Amino acid sequence: MSFGLETLPYGVFSTTDDPRPRTGVAYGAQVVDLPATVARLDSSLAGAVAGPSLDALLAAGPAVWASLRATLTGWLTSGAPVVLADDPIMHLPFTVADYVDFYASEQHATNLGRMFRPGQEPLTPNWKHLPIGYHGRAGTVVVSGTEVVRPSGQRRAPSGEISFGPSQRLDIEAELGFVVGTPSRLGQPVPLEDFEEHVFGVCLVNDWSARDIQAWEYVPLGPFLGKSFATSISPWVVPLAAFDHARVSPPPRTEPLQPYLDDEKTPPWGLDIRFEIRLNGQVVSRPSFDGMYWTGAQMLAHLTANGASLRTGDLYASGTVSSGSPGSLIELSWKSPLELSDGTTRTFLEDGDEVVITATAPGPAGTTINLGAVTGRITATR
Amino acid sequence: MSFGLETLPYGVFSTTDDPRPRTGVAYGAQVVDLPATVARLDSSLAGAVAGPSLDALLAAGPAVWASLRATLTGWLTSGAPVVLADDPIMHLPFTVADYVDFYASEQHATNLGRMFRPGQEPLTPNWKHLPIGYHGRAGTVVVSGTEVVRPSGQRRAPSGEISFGPSQRLDIEAELGFVVGTPSRLGQPVPLEDFEEHVFGVCLVNDWSARDIQAWEYVPLGPFLGKSFATSISPWVVPLAAFDHARVSPPPRTEPLQPYLDDEKTPPWGLDIRFEIRLNGQVVSRPSFDGMYWTGAQMLAHLTANGASLRTGDLYASGTVSSGSPGSLIELSWKSPLELSDGTTRTFLEDGDEVVITATAPGPAGTTINLGAVTGRITATR
Repeated sequence: MSFGLETLPYGVFSTTDDPRPRTGVAYGAQVVDLPATVARLDSSLAGAVAGPSLDALLAAGPAVWASLRATLTGWLTSGAPVVLADDPIMHLPFTVADYVDFYASEQHATNLGRMFRPGQEPLTPNWKHLPIGYHGRAGTVVVSGTEVVRPSGQRRAPSGEISFGPSQRLDIEAELGFVVGTPSRLGQPVPLEDFEEHVFGVCLVNDWSARDIQAWEYVPLGPFLGKSFATSISPWVVPLAAFDHARVSPPPRTEPLQPYLDDEKTPPWGLDIRFEIRLNGQVVSRPSFDGMYWTGAQMLAHLTANGASLRTGDLYASGTVSSGSPGSLIELSWKSPLELSDGTTRTFLEDGDEVVITATAPGPAGTTINLGAVTGRITATR
Repeated sequence: MSFGLETLPYGVFSTTDDPRPRTGVAYGAQVVDLPATVARLDSSLAGAVAGPSLDALLAAGPAVWASLRATLTGWLTSGAPVVLADDPIMHLPFTVADYVDFYASEQHATNLGRMFRPGQEPLTPNWKHLPIGYHGRAGTVVVSGTEVVRPSGQRRAPSGEISFGPSQRLDIEAELGFVVGTPSRLGQPVPLEDFEEHVFGVCLVNDWSARDIQAWEYVPLGPFLGKSFATSISPWVVPLAAFDHARVSPPPRTEPLQPYLDDEKTPPWGLDIRFEIRLNGQVVSRPSFDGMYWTGAQMLAHLTANGASLRTGDLYASGTVSSGSPGSLIELSWKSPLELSDGTTRTFLEDGDEVVITATAPGPAGTTINLGAVTGRITATR
């Protein structure tokens, strides 16, 4: 699927005849070469689109984000001589500062609670009072298409035997990632209503998870090596401005919220984003972001409520999107293995398996906002 | 206490008459201005000491680390005209890539387990099989001397009431931090014996902790806002080479270890480093690193066992050093409040309290390796 005028996502690309990574905007099936285009049409924009990443654009702040988007829309609708490139090779779009992973889907948290803590209440007592999150490994965030080597690790068999070896329960997590542009000062919380001042846009995230490693390690300090071997993100970051027509109210809250999380009186940041998860080409699930209990604005307000500062390039992901339909294999194969059209079955990923996660959202006047894809193929442990 | 010839730690400083942050080495009560010194004495070293951080030196690798240390030792013993500066203003010594916090003290894990999970086995079943760790917030690692604003957050009272406000249980954690120089490739574990190829040196860490926020948030995904408001590190990074005389065997292991963690056949990386913790000038505890169950080499082997890559500037901390004597107030005031010499008592930190953590280790021929200090004063919530 190509990218319409309503999406205009930003990324970093190179081409075989010009291998320098540079900023670009997806348009149709091509890429607008941003440095080359602004050099031709408006050199005052050069600073914001310079460099081998989106870092300068992210740091430029909301006024520049808005004016650049308006300028690009004007150029593309008026047939201005933008510089287009074909067959882009995509790179990691920005320097990831800190990476945080939330746990914002009530369905996912309930399902995982049942599996990881059988016999207990599946949702922990804090779940509806705050968006639970933890820090992940920023240094192993990779761009879509990067091969994912099956991780090894410690796991404990039902017999109690502890062993080390390749994960036997390698899974996916389909998530939405929020990309921070404007930094904040240490000691200064970011209130709900300042979400758009700080967050530039969103990308797709596949938070690969080794369930056997995770299950053995995660008590009491949380997931670590079960997650830190790789986290894939889509190459295109879609600006928040593209989602004006996709904003919806999040599900009704069933517990009263502390004032810093109470979004009753601010415009809602639920998002009607529909995911598709393909395993070896076959659609295996279609989760919807609109059922997520916590919004991106609430996650940001919580992340900074203790005064933690934001840096340009901070990435925080929603947690597995499992509303409507599950966003992980452990949930999809819970009752019975997943049956694929080639006659094979899956409970977890096998070497050679390829996962493609795509998403779309409603745009203005019946158009579609395209979030692109995050893909990855599993290769055998080295 | 000043720094002898056996320590030669690296840091980043400026002075009132030259406000550019630059690399330096502590010597006596002064600082060797590295860029100015190598410009005068050996310009071939300029690249490794250039820039407003230790990043270039960290990335230069173990051969450069060894030769620079030998060169500096030669210059200082021969009275070469190095450029010295007085009254340095210290800065964050390196760009923190990923920050990981371990939990390597059996005494601390046992004490915290008793307090956070009463009625259960204090050590979780995994504790003696792997060094438990989790990712922290790299963006809020600050240099010693930075004020620490009391964080606000959600906590649940014993009555069950949930509220938001300034932490009432603000604590310290005295830790040792390991600073990674040489990166590693994604998918490529770093074995125990490669520890010195990758780790440049150590610093002191105060992992400030809001126990009330932590207790309410940390199940099931681990500590988050209870830690992410600030982590202070000492300004001086002491090279591993300074600890040749401080290496000791870690405590006997009571469970068999997987081969990637089994350090029976490699030279031990236990470290005889003695900490002192001062609260408002009064020594309140003297923990010893030599009793830590897991070594820095084991933490690194575990951190990368799943193929997670290292970046220059990765920082991983040991977890609270509570062998010999506790490294946190929650442990020190467990049975009864801490009585200070001014007649006041403490269970947790009050606004205005200043904490200073220092440490030393044995050097060659009766000398002392000085790790300097990490300090911080609590200021009221804004």
